[in-house]
Amino acid sequence: MSMTLSNYLPVLTWGRQYDRSALSNDLMAALIVTIMLIPQSLAYALLAGLPPEAGLYASIVPIILYSMFGTSRALAVGPVAVVSLMTAAALSNIVEQGTMGYAVAALSLAGLSGVMLLAMGLFRLGFIANFLSHPVIAGFITASGIIIAASQLKHIFGVDAHGHNLLDLVLSLAAHLSDINWITAVIGVLATGFLFWVRKGLKPMLEGLGLGETLTGVLVKTGPVAVVVLTTFAVWVFGLADRGVKIVGEVPQSLPPFTIPSFSPDLLGQLLLPAFLISIIGFVESISVAQTLAAKKRQRIDPDQELIGLGAANIGASLTGGFPVTGGFSRSVVNFDAGAETPAAGAFTAVGLAIAALALTPLIYFLPKATLAATIIVAVLSLVDFSILKRSWDYSKADFAAVLVTILLTLIVGVEIGVSAGVGLSILLHLYKSSKPHVAEVGQVPGTEHYRNILRHVVITEPSVVTLRVDESLYFANARFLEDKVYNRVAGDKEIRHVILQCSAINEIDLSALESLEMINNRLHEMDVKLHLSEVKGPVMDRLKEQHFLQEMTGEIFLTQYEAAKTVSEKT
Amino acid sequence: MSMTLSNYLPVLTWGRQYDRSALSNDLMAALIVTIMLIPQSLAYALLAGLPPEAGLYASIVPIILYSMFGTSRALAVGPVAVVSLMTAAALSNIVEQGTMGYAVAALSLAGLSGVMLLAMGLFRLGFIANFLSHPVIAGFITASGIIIAASQLKHIFGVDAHGHNLLDLVLSLAAHLSDINWITAVIGVLATGFLFWVRKGLKPMLEGLGLGETLTGVLVKTGPVAVVVLTTFAVWVFGLADRGVKIVGEVPQSLPPFTIPSFSPDLLGQLLLPAFLISIIGFVESISVAQTLAAKKRQRIDPDQELIGLGAANIGASLTGGFPVTGGFSRSVVNFDAGAETPAAGAFTAVGLAIAALALTPLIYFLPKATLAATIIVAVLSLVDFSILKRSWDYSKADFAAVLVTILLTLIVGVEIGVSAGVGLSILLHLYKSSKPHVAEVGQVPGTEHYRNILRHVVITEPSVVTLRVDESLYFANARFLEDKVYNRVAGDKEIRHVILQCSAINEIDLSALESLEMINNRLHEMDVKLHLSEVKGPVMDRLKEQHFLQEMTGEIFLTQYEAAKTVSEKT
Repeated sequence: MSMTLSNYLPVLTWGRQYDRSALSNDLMAALIVTIMLIPQSLAYALLAGLPPEAGLYASIVPIILYSMFGTSRALAVGPVAVVSLMTAAALSNIVEQGTMGYAVAALSLAGLSGVMLLAMGLFRLGFIANFLSHPVIAGFITASGIIIAASQLKHIFGVDAHGHNLLDLVLSLAAHLSDINWITAVIGVLATGFLFWVRKGLKPMLEGLGLGETLTGVLVKTGPVAVVVLTTFAVWVFGLADRGVKIVGEVPQSLPPFTIPSFSPDLLGQLLLPAFLISIIGFVESISVAQTLAAKKRQRIDPDQELIGLGAANIGASLTGGFPVTGGFSRSVVNFDAGAETPAAGAFTAVGLAIAALALTPLIYFLPKATLAATIIVAVLSLVDFSILKRSWDYSKADFAAVLVTILLTLIVGVEIGVSAGVGLSILLHLYKSSKPHVAEVGQVPGTEHYRNILRHVVITEPSVVTLRVDESLYFANARFLEDKVYNRVAGDKEIRHVILQCSAINEIDLSALESLEMINNRLHEMDVKLHLSEVKGPVMDRLKEQHFLQEMTGEIFLTQYEAAKTVSEKT
Repeated sequence: MSMTLSNYLPVLTWGRQYDRSALSNDLMAALIVTIMLIPQSLAYALLAGLPPEAGLYASIVPIILYSMFGTSRALAVGPVAVVSLMTAAALSNIVEQGTMGYAVAALSLAGLSGVMLLAMGLFRLGFIANFLSHPVIAGFITASGIIIAASQLKHIFGVDAHGHNLLDLVLSLAAHLSDINWITAVIGVLATGFLFWVRKGLKPMLEGLGLGETLTGVLVKTGPVAVVVLTTFAVWVFGLADRGVKIVGEVPQSLPPFTIPSFSPDLLGQLLLPAFLISIIGFVESISVAQTLAAKKRQRIDPDQELIGLGAANIGASLTGGFPVTGGFSRSVVNFDAGAETPAAGAFTAVGLAIAALALTPLIYFLPKATLAATIIVAVLSLVDFSILKRSWDYSKADFAAVLVTILLTLIVGVEIGVSAGVGLSILLHLYKSSKPHVAEVGQVPGTEHYRNILRHVVITEPSVVTLRVDESLYFANARFLEDKVYNRVAGDKEIRHVILQCSAINEIDLSALESLEMINNRLHEMDVKLHLSEVKGPVMDRLKEQHFLQEMTGEIFLTQYEAAKTVSEKT
């Protein structure tokens, strides 16, 4: 019982061994992450189309819940770029941005996603995420990064623009180009430029000065905070808000409120697919980060328990004024690098953010939205990486097709269609390949007991015996293909008296394939040709044993292909 | 050029060798099939919800077109039970039965299905049909047979009833039970009983009298014609039509008319999915019959050309007052048994039916609908066969699940949902299985070079070396699963210094799996464990060669597992 409980509540395991050294490390990490998270949380709320405080709220209770249920020691849960973009895309189709209904729908989306994650964890359905192939994920992240960056340009230039794909965004921006607010544009471009310089210029410079990796890292991470402080100060001092620079404005001073998502069946129905996609994408992003960090310390991540942790975090977000959250890459890496030892670091971060929400919000009244947009743009452009196109092109055209479709459809149509099409296409291509498996006619390598492809090797064959090796499990999608292959080979050659199927690569034979084998056996029998099997695997043989196919088979089953060929040749 | 043309027009091949003996055999077969087809065509039109003449029209031009483009020598194309049921199910959702729009929608459905079949043939997409597994087809045919039989009970009892699944039909019948027309019921029950007796009682009796198989067969096939003649005569003589017995009534005396299907985008959009399902189901039914008959004479069927033949037939049906058609089992077997040698037999059948449509339609004015319903019921109940449930249960629970879902959903919800769910579930279960492949830890069988599962055999292992054999191709759906397997095995055992992956059953490694292998290699490296591969297949190795994974690999690649184990053991 206690075993089971601590399985579902990992906090019971690490909590017992918690000591002072872990405490001080966790506190230090929490401080650094808190400073980094304040602008990031505000910015991702903006990206999701929500008021800035939603970003803070989404980072408080979810972190605490994850720290109780999750298995990763260093994962930091909260709003992340791609999930925020998907949230905006999902909600904008249903309710108008800026309305009360929009914020409530965001709660419902988080709650629905939380319930789905929890259910997947409890029913051990985490394997579903495996159907997102690596290339599809890489393509999706790259395309999303571009869309996110494009969506923030309106804030940088102080214009109105809308759209959830690149085409709409670009057209909308072009249409509003004449409305540019030049002061906003100056702030936006300078902030963006500064943040890029911090990453690309300052970092190598500080390292060149011999400041050490950790200190450099901390200084670089404070870049966004510096921009926030500087631009807020500038807007306040010069009264730029009165000259058209859009600011964050009044943010309530409050702990996360208790909120109730809408349970309208109509709304939930419309959110079903987006919530599912957000759950899967969020889970994949989170588990990759968690596993990368865990491997560095030889810790184990339990994917099903991770689903439970993320599910709890999202349900928490839906009850406390947040929106969908997941384990973020940059914040988790910062947490890990800053020395976080246990999930308690996350809880301390939550406390830090709660203090910020209570006490610091008046300070960001004059924070320009352009600054937040700049932090988003710089963060997401580091995700954009087209090298997956070349890599997949070189390795496998099927993978390339899946990446290309994912990128193009995400950019042109939108995130939901993009990732769904990528997953669908990779599954279809996989099924297509296995529906036309490689079938080799094999012969004996002289002087050995080995049998190899007659097209690749110099081998000995017998005119009355054909041996075919199928390099794939036999199942419904390729059962008829095998029938065709055998008939085509035998129909053209009157000398053939024996067909041997070498089954060394056949890991499974389903009922359709069994019926095809029976059919092959019967039709070959009508042509006076015997069917034999060789090298049938243990588990496959176990199943076949019970079937009358074995009694009806005109030929025999041999342990090795060599034995099969020898016995059959002697008979002819 | 001539080669290509005769590929697409098989008539050019067999037409050149046509002689008098083939002609007389084809004429005889055509006569028998024509007599059998007249009641059958009328009955299937009734089943599809169309006027009786549509059944005749659907059997004339389509047969001729198939005989020019199809590759099967004996296949008889026309309305068949399951496709007629699917037609009724598809159209009833959209337009009201009995209206002009209904008949026009049937033309559109046939045309759309024809275009799809043609396109699949030209683009060589016939493999799509392979995703209908044998058990799903068996389950679907059985469930459809039951629904068809149930749908005809209203004609047998002379009541009104509607519905396209068993539940609706039974409820609707029950609600109208008090409206039974007793004269109709007597005709219906007697006709059904007689037809059953012809199949089950007369046939053995005639064989017992030593009448020979062919003659018995012909007599049994004339059973439906006899019932048609007798009941029509009875209705006429006793004036039963005035006493509430529903009759076929006036049927135009006409050759198939030239008709134009509706091209309304709205209608076509709604028909898209039904047309696709009808195309696939029809193709599967047709190709199975064609291949069974071809194998008996060692002829070849070209699946892609069959698609073209069926596509042409359906387009023909849509232009001549018909509805969706395909190659039918019973009519093709009769054609084959009656001695048809070439597709010309089909053309002669078309002529026979055209004469019937022109001259014989007044004779069926008094034909009771109950008689047609009886012929349908007796025909489809022979399709009902629940043995697939036991067979699949015994062999594979995944196949059983697919059959059960297909049967239940077809009966309860309807044909389209039933077959789609069956296909979807079998694909999902296949993907699920391959996402959690069998991974065996193997050891050396003493005194041999063979390596077997340590759980199944007494084998020799080395504490510092772990060899894992994955019995599945590595692709995105199982890439992370493999990572987990390896980490779990290594994390628990500090002695391990080498991991060997025996790749003998790996037919493919996609990009996701390659990246997982790189990840495994890196993480094992961090744990000071080397990764080796053994028995990598030729095509897999060809691809890996180009990749930097091979340079980064901490271990080596060995041709055989024996060599790998020997080399690695010597190092430790």
